[in-house]
Amino acid sequence: MNFADRLATAIKLKKTPLIVGLDPRASRLPAEFGIDVSASPEATAAAYERFCCCIIDVVSPLVPAVKPQAAFFENLGPAGMQVLWNVVRYAQSKDLIVIMDAKRGDIGSTAEAYASAFLGSSENSAWGCDCLTVNPYLGDDSLEPFVDRCRTTDSGIFVLVRTSNPGGRMLQELVAEKQKIYSIVADHVQKLAFETKGELGYGCVGAVVGATNPEQLAILRQRMPNTIFLVPGIGAQGGTPADVADAFDDSGLGAVINSSRAIIFAHDSDEYSSTANWQAAVEMATRHTIESIAAATSAGNLV
Amino acid sequence: MNFADRLATAIKLKKTPLIVGLDPRASRLPAEFGIDVSASPEATAAAYERFCCCIIDVVSPLVPAVKPQAAFFENLGPAGMQVLWNVVRYAQSKDLIVIMDAKRGDIGSTAEAYASAFLGSSENSAWGCDCLTVNPYLGDDSLEPFVDRCRTTDSGIFVLVRTSNPGGRMLQELVAEKQKIYSIVADHVQKLAFETKGELGYGCVGAVVGATNPEQLAILRQRMPNTIFLVPGIGAQGGTPADVADAFDDSGLGAVINSSRAIIFAHDSDEYSSTANWQAAVEMATRHTIESIAAATSAGNLV
Repeated sequence: MNFADRLATAIKLKKTPLIVGLDPRASRLPAEFGIDVSASPEATAAAYERFCCCIIDVVSPLVPAVKPQAAFFENLGPAGMQVLWNVVRYAQSKDLIVIMDAKRGDIGSTAEAYASAFLGSSENSAWGCDCLTVNPYLGDDSLEPFVDRCRTTDSGIFVLVRTSNPGGRMLQELVAEKQKIYSIVADHVQKLAFETKGELGYGCVGAVVGATNPEQLAILRQRMPNTIFLVPGIGAQGGTPADVADAFDDSGLGAVINSSRAIIFAHDSDEYSSTANWQAAVEMATRHTIESIAAATSAGNLV
Repeated sequence: MNFADRLATAIKLKKTPLIVGLDPRASRLPAEFGIDVSASPEATAAAYERFCCCIIDVVSPLVPAVKPQAAFFENLGPAGMQVLWNVVRYAQSKDLIVIMDAKRGDIGSTAEAYASAFLGSSENSAWGCDCLTVNPYLGDDSLEPFVDRCRTTDSGIFVLVRTSNPGGRMLQELVAEKQKIYSIVADHVQKLAFETKGELGYGCVGAVVGATNPEQLAILRQRMPNTIFLVPGIGAQGGTPADVADAFDDSGLGAVINSSRAIIFAHDSDEYSSTANWQAAVEMATRHTIESIAAATSAGNLV
């Protein structure tokens, strides 16, 4: 089944477009892990695995997908990469879709190597992820190997279009040929999405569009009718569920909304300090975020 | 010592700006490795380690640096990442500077995680590389954590400015505010290079500029007087030593020229088919490339 249809099926099953970002940090693990920034990479990696798998246990009945952030695992060297692999396997064993947030991008045969590294089943791909985030700076031919891989393995990519950081405007908001750079990227992504669309009309090539500018989300939703959005930036980055309302189509499809720190480090928050343990805080934060998104957007129609 | 000064010292010592790209591929290893594309990731990873270490043995007396391409190691999963780590350590044990070609880029604390993952000594960084390639699409604030890390660990980055692939033009050649996008990136990189310049006038923030457009190289050399260029694209990608002449300053500094496939797979070439073994082919290809660059550019002044 086309990746977009697979993702939509999971969204409908869980009745939410919320996905949970797995961004472990030594400085913020619950105290019971006994890890701080002075711990060895191996000890920290082992703690990240337990932490992420516990989160997966909590969120797998509730959300369609998780998004591991490769940087935090790479930060621990080879031990971290082994744990990243283990976490991907564990998430998939719990029927979660795995969107690897690695923002890869290169040219020619190097892009092919990244594509086959990350996308596919665990039988035909080293990391065996369902989806990967990809950087477009190297241009259309740098995206082709990823799109080809999506077609042959029913996997997906999300291409960076408009990011949620202030500096994202430096290149993305420049105007060339009467259009902003991110709009030019958006049009190319939409073309790829149209060419790869599945039964529900969405393609296996999606777009990363930050939650921090609701007007842009609305404009891009119109401009990219076949493109699924991956929307980061709610929670710790300042975006609210209302800010992402325009990312969806009328049936509550067309977007996944990521929250990382506000969920996985909920134990740090005053709001959830009365919970029995850190996993209960994660569960409550996940449920609250799901409810907030349902209340503020057409994702409420999924219920 | 500032990364730019370290790199220049190594270039002067070896009397060449040639660097060798470590891009192992199962389909192209010498026959004696007994590996083809059907081999297991673990067996392939072990072969990559032997292959890369043999290449390092051959080239370490000849060139200042090697550039491992992360994609080919990531393509083998965790086993490949362990081998990548081993190869970095081995190259540094042979006094080679290691430029990790991973084209990373992300925002805020994620960029910090990538920066500390890759840049620094093996005591304070998981991968302990001397330098990393970075993608600028996410803007100035996404580069800051990498620049900060360069300052505190005497490491370097090369930011993608103009890539050597045909599709690179899609975004990089667009004109905004009367300038091409790659020129806008170039000006920002030059500013960072100026702010981090060492004793020889070059900064620890460099630029990736492809060899496939000599006119652009010349224009960018003028525009970026404090910026070291990493120039891919000679050899298998079609650029010649003459094409890169304008990348250098008059003393033969200011650029490193990468060749990957034309050197590491020299055993495949008719030109070197009469050598005693594959390492002899690598050595001869390296020496020929060094001589060609010296003959065609101001790098000849290094001798």
